[in-house]
Amino acid sequence: MLEDKDQERTSIEKLGEFGLIEHLTKDFKIEQKSTIKGIGDDATVLDFKDKKAVISTDLLIEGVHFDLSYMPLKHLGYKAVMVNLSDIYAMNATATQITISIAVSNRFPLEALEELYAGVAMACKTYNVDLVGGDTTSSKTGLMISVTAIGEANEVNIAYRSGAKPNDLLVVSGDLGAAYMGLQVLEREKEVFKVNPNSQPDLEPYSYLVERQLKPEARKDIIELLKKLDVHPTSMIDISDGLSSEILHLSKSSRLGIDLYEDKIPLDPTVIAACEEFKMDSTLIALSGGEDYELLFTLDQKEFPKIKGNPNLTVVGHTTGKDEDAFLISRNNTKIPLTAQGWNSFT
Amino acid sequence: MLEDKDQERTSIEKLGEFGLIEHLTKDFKIEQKSTIKGIGDDATVLDFKDKKAVISTDLLIEGVHFDLSYMPLKHLGYKAVMVNLSDIYAMNATATQITISIAVSNRFPLEALEELYAGVAMACKTYNVDLVGGDTTSSKTGLMISVTAIGEANEVNIAYRSGAKPNDLLVVSGDLGAAYMGLQVLEREKEVFKVNPNSQPDLEPYSYLVERQLKPEARKDIIELLKKLDVHPTSMIDISDGLSSEILHLSKSSRLGIDLYEDKIPLDPTVIAACEEFKMDSTLIALSGGEDYELLFTLDQKEFPKIKGNPNLTVVGHTTGKDEDAFLISRNNTKIPLTAQGWNSFT
Repeated sequence: MLEDKDQERTSIEKLGEFGLIEHLTKDFKIEQKSTIKGIGDDATVLDFKDKKAVISTDLLIEGVHFDLSYMPLKHLGYKAVMVNLSDIYAMNATATQITISIAVSNRFPLEALEELYAGVAMACKTYNVDLVGGDTTSSKTGLMISVTAIGEANEVNIAYRSGAKPNDLLVVSGDLGAAYMGLQVLEREKEVFKVNPNSQPDLEPYSYLVERQLKPEARKDIIELLKKLDVHPTSMIDISDGLSSEILHLSKSSRLGIDLYEDKIPLDPTVIAACEEFKMDSTLIALSGGEDYELLFTLDQKEFPKIKGNPNLTVVGHTTGKDEDAFLISRNNTKIPLTAQGWNSFT
Repeated sequence: MLEDKDQERTSIEKLGEFGLIEHLTKDFKIEQKSTIKGIGDDATVLDFKDKKAVISTDLLIEGVHFDLSYMPLKHLGYKAVMVNLSDIYAMNATATQITISIAVSNRFPLEALEELYAGVAMACKTYNVDLVGGDTTSSKTGLMISVTAIGEANEVNIAYRSGAKPNDLLVVSGDLGAAYMGLQVLEREKEVFKVNPNSQPDLEPYSYLVERQLKPEARKDIIELLKKLDVHPTSMIDISDGLSSEILHLSKSSRLGIDLYEDKIPLDPTVIAACEEFKMDSTLIALSGGEDYELLFTLDQKEFPKIKGNPNLTVVGHTTGKDEDAFLISRNNTKIPLTAQGWNSFT
């Protein structure tokens, strides 16, 4: 996409570092009462009053976390924000601000960065978070994005990974595996395109999968739903590396065993269909696929009536006893130890 | 340094992402009362009570911001923290926490990252800040470091760039230009080494310059000194891109003119000597060299008796009238408009 010679190309060098930041951030508005001072000083000043501040940070590296041959820059900007907001929601907190730092090589014209920031702006507007700072620099190769998300929460509401109790319900939002299958579809189309650059991919049957990969949404709505339902998760984590890896995190942090029931894992019909087409096991994809950005949490059993039948929430298992292990209970009732096969950038 | 084949080399891949973070951060201690939850959850939880939170972030890219052929990794870790703490102190705030994210290519063994984190640990200990989070990932090429620094301040004490009043004094801490001249010395030695790998550089005469480049210190001591002296800066900024660029920031943000007196600029004798040796103009180096990490602030004239004669602080000029420009008043009393020739990674 960046190779389209018809596009207008303005060199970043002309603007310089400060000019670039000013240009890219001039249309961002401050909406949060807690933002005292945003962009334009040595540091941002925030006021959380009697609430706790919640902070999370992530690095996204070209060629490792994203491939610009099928990831439009606007989507990338949006996704970079989502990945971080998801971590804030996973604390049962409200996201309020972000900082975004980018390093770009000179193969990116200004117009490319404008696209990226358009995605960031859309994410900020949709999720009601303020862009309050960051850094912009050159890189020798490729594009790197570092986002820090900031949120606020009343102390009693914060859901740590470590708070699960024995015999709590294990609940997951939405459905799993779609983002990974979307990636498979996109990778396949990329290979087809390499062989025949005139091929017109028909992604229509895979639109849900592709959208989950290219434009994931952080589950702010689930945090609001839990509040509305007066439900209090005892522990929570977001599913970025696959269900298996996240269950192991909750199990380890809470020092409890967890049983996950294979037949309860929520799968969209298009995920099941794509798994059949790609000859992949849908359970394995849900366990290890990653990038779903759904929320996984534990709940006291007496809260079950509040969530029963809610289409956004699925009970997939329960915690067991102190210092026990995490298991998958398969459809044929076999108990299989869960292992972390989640996504790891180093392997 | 990384090419030393005698060193023990452990592949990062063996540890995986979570194992790596655990390994690198296991010896870090939490000292700040405001740190409720550090590393090990989706996000960090902090409690600033009635104080404001102050947040700053910076990206450091190999080949752009640092050169590993003369920058030891331990120093790099230390400097990455300093660069960010300096921004917090420039708000007249106390630094309390940092997050550090790194992206590394597989040419770096675990031992290299241990060195880097040893520098981070030393910085955290010396400056009393907690490491509370971050991200660790692979990169296609080189090393990238993203640091977010967090601090706290009472609202009345925060010094913005925009607070200067007409006829305030302009004050700078320490001395300027040494870090840039240190870089010149190191670059020269690198060229000598390329021609003759057996040459033994004698850096002893340049030790102050080289140390200012490789191991800068953020001026926490100056913030503490100002508090002790009961001095209240009306505006403040840290000198990372050179005195000229920072004066222009203060001038623009405060919408005031500023006169800087060339003969007042504090220069260490070794900077003057090195400038003569390298045939460079010491004023230009102080104005545009960068990486000094000193503090530049404005002060009501009636506070002058409190700082008079203090060896750490030098009055270098004063603000002028509303919406006027910034000038250098040269030794021969010529008024020269200041221009931002500070360091810019894009040029």
